[in-house]
Amino acid sequence: VGAGRPRIVTLLSDFGLSDGYVGAMKGVLLSQAPGITVVDLSHTIAPFDISGAAYLLASAALEFPPRTIHVAVVDPGVGSRRRLLLAEIARHYFLVPDNGLLDVVLLRERLTRCVQVLPARVAARRVAPTFHGRDLLAPAAAALARGMSLSRFGPPIRHLSRRLPLRPLVVHGNRCVGYVLHVDRFGTLILNVEAAPLERFARGQPVRVQVGHHRVTRWVRTYAEAPRGSLVALIGSQGWVEVAVVEGSAAQRLRAKVGQRVELRREGARGA
Amino acid sequence: VGAGRPRIVTLLSDFGLSDGYVGAMKGVLLSQAPGITVVDLSHTIAPFDISGAAYLLASAALEFPPRTIHVAVVDPGVGSRRRLLLAEIARHYFLVPDNGLLDVVLLRERLTRCVQVLPARVAARRVAPTFHGRDLLAPAAAALARGMSLSRFGPPIRHLSRRLPLRPLVVHGNRCVGYVLHVDRFGTLILNVEAAPLERFARGQPVRVQVGHHRVTRWVRTYAEAPRGSLVALIGSQGWVEVAVVEGSAAQRLRAKVGQRVELRREGARGA
Amino acid sequence: VGAGRPRIVTLLSDFGLSDGYVGAMKGVLLSQAPGITVVDLSHTIAPFDISGAAYLLASAALEFPPRTIHVAVVDPGVGSRRRLLLAEIARHYFLVPDNGLLDVVLLRERLTRCVQVLPARVAARRVAPTFHGRDLLAPAAAALARGMSLSRFGPPIRHLSRRLPLRPLVVHGNRCVGYVLHVDRFGTLILNVEAAPLERFARGQPVRVQVGHHRVTRWVRTYAEAPRGSLVALIGSQGWVEVAVVEGSAAQRLRAKVGQRVELRREGARGA
Repeated sequence: VGAGRPRIVTLLSDFGLSDGYVGAMKGVLLSQAPGITVVDLSHTIAPFDISGAAYLLASAALEFPPRTIHVAVVDPGVGSRRRLLLAEIARHYFLVPDNGLLDVVLLRERLTRCVQVLPARVAARRVAPTFHGRDLLAPAAAALARGMSLSRFGPPIRHLSRRLPLRPLVVHGNRCVGYVLHVDRFGTLILNVEAAPLERFARGQPVRVQVGHHRVTRWVRTYAEAPRGSLVALIGSQGWVEVAVVEGSAAQRLRAKVGQRVELRREGARGA
Repeated sequence: VGAGRPRIVTLLSDFGLSDGYVGAMKGVLLSQAPGITVVDLSHTIAPFDISGAAYLLASAALEFPPRTIHVAVVDPGVGSRRRLLLAEIARHYFLVPDNGLLDVVLLRERLTRCVQVLPARVAARRVAPTFHGRDLLAPAAAALARGMSLSRFGPPIRHLSRRLPLRPLVVHGNRCVGYVLHVDRFGTLILNVEAAPLERFARGQPVRVQVGHHRVTRWVRTYAEAPRGSLVALIGSQGWVEVAVVEGSAAQRLRAKVGQRVELRREGARGA
Repeated sequence: VGAGRPRIVTLLSDFGLSDGYVGAMKGVLLSQAPGITVVDLSHTIAPFDISGAAYLLASAALEFPPRTIHVAVVDPGVGSRRRLLLAEIARHYFLVPDNGLLDVVLLRERLTRCVQVLPARVAARRVAPTFHGRDLLAPAAAALARGMSLSRFGPPIRHLSRRLPLRPLVVHGNRCVGYVLHVDRFGTLILNVEAAPLERFARGQPVRVQVGHHRVTRWVRTYAEAPRGSLVALIGSQGWVEVAVVEGSAAQRLRAKVGQRVELRREGARGA
């Protein structure tokens, strides 16, 4: 039994690293579930940026061992009636506000089970209405690590409130419209276009990517294939199409932002 | 015996995350006390900001299990004659320079015991006069984790050098003067006004908060009670009065800074 | 046997803290080598700043216990033919691209052994050509932690590709030319001048340091010996000569940058 218990808790938040919020959550976790390993995913998500956090969660969470508990707190609705969720996905556990944080993970994985986390089942003290991360989510993670079964956290939930504008790819003949899902630290644009749909769209023809007034025509497997400063497209390490400048910043060069419209065009076809 | 030993060491510093200072301290800790868990509280405290570090320590440290060791290094006086302290407070241990870092914790908790840390009792090698975190405080934490008793670190200390300008609230009839204790990542102002004194002052009347030329009259329990962009006051998760803008930054809106004077006024009373 | 296995893995990268790259590496490490301790050295090295990372590695890595595994990923050449290395130095292990990251460590320590890491020996899945940190270096660290012997990672390597412009000190009579090796968070300049060569150069005479148009003539043991705002030189905690402003920033005051030429001049000698 003990061997099967979750032992790792990851933390993702927009709390930054200069306040005590992250430390307080770690303290609660280690107080209520001694011996667990707490791992930071990131705390420098832009304030209230649910979309960025959802992308990050999808990039990193499932690399951890099965039964890892992922606590994500980007929560502009703290204190409102938005529910707290405990979701099981691909043998991992996710403790999150029901605000879209699982949307990107759920693009690729199926929701196995999900329950609502009722405050009365997990709170160990008076709950501050502005800090559910410390007073509800961390205690819930600790309870799960101590072996509490999912059904005891609250009633089952069938439908999450998906709220991110994760618009699907729209294909019009030889054009395909997507958008910038994420901009990483290197200024690389990650598009909402995955490798398999791209191949179906391309039909073996060259594809060029249009971002604003800029066209990207050079596809590479890896940055090192093109000289420093080149503007390139590639299938990135997460399986999404990326637009990058070799050892530079595509976001700066193209003045591109998260959410921005991007067009893919199959070459050899008519029209500019 | 073993079970009672401290096993968790938290680190708080103004070292930033781009230099090797934090890594060096972690290395010393794990070398000299194998098997302990090292947890980062924060390393992005502004350089030399003792006040911010003292507030952060009070927000997070006591959430950890009893017998946790908290090492805080914001130390503009490194190499001077300022003493190093090992303090026991609320069953936690604190290793800090004697420069005010414990002042906010001690607003709410009593000092149980305190000793000076004599370099000769803990240093394992030549002490660099500019890096006591690595050469004295980390070795002291490791020694404590290995079971060394407090009395062996150095002579008892009765009076800490409290140096922070933690001015008490001043009440003049229907006015009460405090200041901004901390500004968090979200731009929320944390005031040096706690819930209980506020209630005594209010006498059941409405209270408004004046920050510069701005008046805050709307009190909420949690941000979600007011529309995005509203300027509100509330009792925050640490028990202090906070001034916030819902999903925005009060610090930006009010151009407010740490240390700034704030006035609370009991309504229903005469005068603007 | 078990007791002798490496149990600590440190991570150093330029991945920043706002993307999922670091989390993904931690996930792979904890999946493939359960029970290890993962410690962050830094992830906020400037993108592609091999020199800064090499300095940081030299400042912190060897403070950890023997047999610690240090994984450093600052890797503008990812996907090119640059080799991956597993080096043993001073009883520590280093997993790095062969691009100069070990240069500063090797100024002071000898390379005991080094092998190339062949992808086929460590990769557990398809290797993304842009993320060798996750798909090759983390799996290699996990394999080493599980007890895989060095010879099984790949063929021995005798000569690393040293690429950093670590120019030696050049002494012309009473002048000695060096440069700024690193600027730390406090704006302190760390020069490529160590204590012993400095003493040999000084011959017991006063030495002044020239940075651009600024002369530094005051030497201190520690910052606290001079008033706030003073411009001073000292032997820093890593054993390098540093130029600092007490409780201020020398980099700002002197407008100095990494790589900038610095001149030391022995006083009492002729000429300005």
